[in-house]
Amino acid sequence: MRFGINFFPTLGPSDRSAAQYYDESLRLTELADELGFDHVKTVEHYFFRYGGYSPDPVTFLAAAAARTRRLRLVTGAAIPAFTHPVKLAAKLAMLDNISRGRLDVGFGRAFLPDEFEAFQVPLDESRDRFDENVEAIRRLWTEQDLVWEGRFHRFGPVTLLPRPYQRPHPPILVATAFTPESGERAGRNGYGVLLVPSISSREHVQEMLRVYRAGRAEGGHDPQGGQVHMSYTLSVAEDGDRAREAGRRQIEHYTASLVEAVESWGRARSSAYAGYERLAEKVRKADYRQQLAENKVLAGTPEEVAAQLAEVREWFGDVTVSLQVNSGTATYREAEQSLRLFAEHVLPRLGAAGSPVGS
Amino acid sequence: MRFGINFFPTLGPSDRSAAQYYDESLRLTELADELGFDHVKTVEHYFFRYGGYSPDPVTFLAAAAARTRRLRLVTGAAIPAFTHPVKLAAKLAMLDNISRGRLDVGFGRAFLPDEFEAFQVPLDESRDRFDENVEAIRRLWTEQDLVWEGRFHRFGPVTLLPRPYQRPHPPILVATAFTPESGERAGRNGYGVLLVPSISSREHVQEMLRVYRAGRAEGGHDPQGGQVHMSYTLSVAEDGDRAREAGRRQIEHYTASLVEAVESWGRARSSAYAGYERLAEKVRKADYRQQLAENKVLAGTPEEVAAQLAEVREWFGDVTVSLQVNSGTATYREAEQSLRLFAEHVLPRLGAAGSPVGS
Repeated sequence: MRFGINFFPTLGPSDRSAAQYYDESLRLTELADELGFDHVKTVEHYFFRYGGYSPDPVTFLAAAAARTRRLRLVTGAAIPAFTHPVKLAAKLAMLDNISRGRLDVGFGRAFLPDEFEAFQVPLDESRDRFDENVEAIRRLWTEQDLVWEGRFHRFGPVTLLPRPYQRPHPPILVATAFTPESGERAGRNGYGVLLVPSISSREHVQEMLRVYRAGRAEGGHDPQGGQVHMSYTLSVAEDGDRAREAGRRQIEHYTASLVEAVESWGRARSSAYAGYERLAEKVRKADYRQQLAENKVLAGTPEEVAAQLAEVREWFGDVTVSLQVNSGTATYREAEQSLRLFAEHVLPRLGAAGSPVGS
Repeated sequence: MRFGINFFPTLGPSDRSAAQYYDESLRLTELADELGFDHVKTVEHYFFRYGGYSPDPVTFLAAAAARTRRLRLVTGAAIPAFTHPVKLAAKLAMLDNISRGRLDVGFGRAFLPDEFEAFQVPLDESRDRFDENVEAIRRLWTEQDLVWEGRFHRFGPVTLLPRPYQRPHPPILVATAFTPESGERAGRNGYGVLLVPSISSREHVQEMLRVYRAGRAEGGHDPQGGQVHMSYTLSVAEDGDRAREAGRRQIEHYTASLVEAVESWGRARSSAYAGYERLAEKVRKADYRQQLAENKVLAGTPEEVAAQLAEVREWFGDVTVSLQVNSGTATYREAEQSLRLFAEHVLPRLGAAGSPVGS
């Protein structure tokens, strides 16, 4: 297993200023680099407390790159439908060079109707735009004098500058929350996947993994290879009850912000997003004790969290885990403590179950 | 006068790797911060050696923000026509917060037909798109629940996150290379201007300044206020001939890359860009001795460069000057030497003519 940190802010100006949020997140990023964690990841969302402090993951990760030496930088996920492929390919290539090859690119389809409306992108085109733009970006990275004649974009012959640092291109991961076909397709293309175990049953995640590995085999890739990323809210303290209470506040804050953001699914419908209209209802009735028991949040003493992770590993294998310590309600001190305790006391307890962070 | 540095790369992979270019530029940025310079600025261009290593100024400036404490960060210029206003407003607001209010936003219309073609934006719509998008961005920064019903974009009600750090919003500057009306309009709106004295006669720059100040007065702003930015290639050495030779190589490299990039004006025509089709011819016949004599490039001993700047100040007033030391042919050592000599030996010679850098 590898462990990194994930920044998924669920904040608005009345919770914490954006300047304070970035400052604390960059300090935690430096700390994670020092402690030997594997990566730093952040999201792309707009307008709402749910991710809205992170509308451009590349901007945050460029600052993170300048303050770290070893951490990999992960977009989790950048949304190709909302940025022209030339622009997105180019700025990711800049980040890949600025960081000397430390970039992993997660791409997502997005799912909030209000975001699609603002960018005037029809929800029903989401999958086609995703496929076209990811492929255009991959080819901009790898080909000279590219001529692109797609349904949504036409350009060329052009040669993208700068060329990516990593050859043939930075590793690509695809966010696949619910839809097995997305996982299967990611596997066939040899891409990694970003899964969201906190909003799916263990069985569903296992099914996604099975389909993903089958896709890899079908595409001629090692079925056991490929990066599999999962994000978890983390709260560790020597006092387990305190850690769980802090974890509860984090989760409730996250849930409230998600409910706020998915409210527009009450009026939007799209065959490309079957079932999303029930998302608000689904997250609203989540029970914290049950989430803890099902390892959808990691909270407790170092020993308890290590036991949770041993189980996660049994279920899903040697995945890459991104820890959320700074989403909304945790103070900087709590977030720092969680990271330090994790590095110093959780990992050693994982023993054979977990390789050292960053290895 | 204030002095900063400008990064306008004229490089491709056969000249210098992108990773090396960013690394050297970020080291020079840190040095400029230490030496007390006022700002760091970079450009937005695509595909060609002419600026192509800088397709996203915000990505570079975010890394620069993380490695500096005092420098202001200037987009010189970001192109609103090539990025959705929600996206551009949001990432600029991120940078403003990450840097705790050190951002100045220069916006430009762009002028290379190949760039417009790639983004499928008609050249003839350039001015209307510029006006609409800059205004949309300004209102996204300053208003809640904004409803935007423009010709090119419709969205809202939305409230942008994050809110900018600077209130009401980061200072706006407008790139106005040739067209007096652009300068006049920038003045009326209370914006600053980015002028390009290297490709205009002194008289034309003076006319631009006159029109700009008249526009400010008309808009109810202090006519002598407003940021006026100008970029100059700089080459200083104790040996004046060596400095001039290095300056010549820089300028010739810059000219060659501009000729390459504007070649497409040979086939493109647009009433919105009258005269641009003769641009390649115009830059090709520039004479270095004349450019030096007309202070379009700053090169020589510290004493000689100080004399040039005293003249520039006489012509144009207390403008903000961005020095280009790292565009193409200069080695890192030469660029560093130019910056150090400038700070230590040029500025003191300016005496009453120049305030200390960064003041």
